[in-house]
Amino acid sequence: MNRIAPRTGTAFLLHKGQYLTVIDINGQQVSDMVVFNAEDTGEYISSGKSIDFEETIRFTKGNFIWSNRSNKLLEIVKDDVGVHDFLLAPCSKETFEIMYKDHDTQFSCRDNLYKNLRPFGIQSDAIPTAFNVFMNVKISNHGAVSVEAPISNKGDKIIFKAMKNLIVALTACSAKDSNGGSFKPIGYKITTDLD
Amino acid sequence: MNRIAPRTGTAFLLHKGQYLTVIDINGQQVSDMVVFNAEDTGEYISSGKSIDFEETIRFTKGNFIWSNRSNKLLEIVKDDVGVHDFLLAPCSKETFEIMYKDHDTQFSCRDNLYKNLRPFGIQSDAIPTAFNVFMNVKISNHGAVSVEAPISNKGDKIIFKAMKNLIVALTACSAKDSNGGSFKPIGYKITTDLD
Repeated sequence: MNRIAPRTGTAFLLHKGQYLTVIDINGQQVSDMVVFNAEDTGEYISSGKSIDFEETIRFTKGNFIWSNRSNKLLEIVKDDVGVHDFLLAPCSKETFEIMYKDHDTQFSCRDNLYKNLRPFGIQSDAIPTAFNVFMNVKISNHGAVSVEAPISNKGDKIIFKAMKNLIVALTACSAKDSNGGSFKPIGYKITTDLD
Repeated sequence: MNRIAPRTGTAFLLHKGQYLTVIDINGQQVSDMVVFNAEDTGEYISSGKSIDFEETIRFTKGNFIWSNRSNKLLEIVKDDVGVHDFLLAPCSKETFEIMYKDHDTQFSCRDNLYKNLRPFGIQSDAIPTAFNVFMNVKISNHGAVSVEAPISNKGDKIIFKAMKNLIVALTACSAKDSNGGSFKPIGYKITTDLD
């Protein structure tokens, strides 16, 4: 298993047919994920298309993650948790400044995604809304959005299958409120078989 | 008042401080809206940032629409309806093929947005999730998403104030299910004062 240190990120190639397992090593830790078509990075993960085609905001086993060009990029093939977010943009230095009045802005998912995607030729403005693994976002009957601690426990995982050759970026999220008040690592592995 | 014919779109400049009024001329008609910074089109409307900063999926008077760079693009200053969508991507030919098994795919919001934004130098892949004026999207307690007829009546309007110099594209939406089963026009006007 690979380990993403707290408040950092990584990016890698995931080939069509391979499985990506994302593991909450200690529990209550979010991982923001963005995905691009490795052969044409103008195609990328789309929350709008995914929510439209899957007719849900509660993505879990059996759901697909779609691209801006209406193609399937990933299938969720296993999910221990069932609570992830696909509404909120990655935390950025402005998130901390505007929402949290927090001036420790040297770590953010947006910066960690960009830093790791830049070597693949991805521009900062091209970073889309992420699929936020293990993120627990509540919506009230009046549409109010609140971020609560993840319900994921130590060792919980979600497994995605790649439907195309992909560039995947993952973080161990840097927003305190999203992670139950502390910063923890995230694990991941790439396999050719589903164990 | 300008009139957008059924299943078509338009795009125009909206200067900082100007007001854009979008009018449901006949009632029960959606208008997909996307917005770019006119001085740097790498900056565009972001559902993820807007939902994050405004802490709602139910945008109405007093809410701002934010960009991918965490800047305010528009303020909602008047709203007769209070039910709009910021989750779903613009309908595209694939929406009709995949979701509706409908092969009358010659009209779609995505194509109408692109056709009108291309003269401003906007690429197809750069069209983001739209702010869907008057669109009535329900979310169940289990996260299931369904599209219902708009609750907007004849003459209802929403007014936005531009926070920057903007390129705005608007449609009269082409998805039957989003518009109570028929295709109607959308009105809009640009003013320097709020009447």
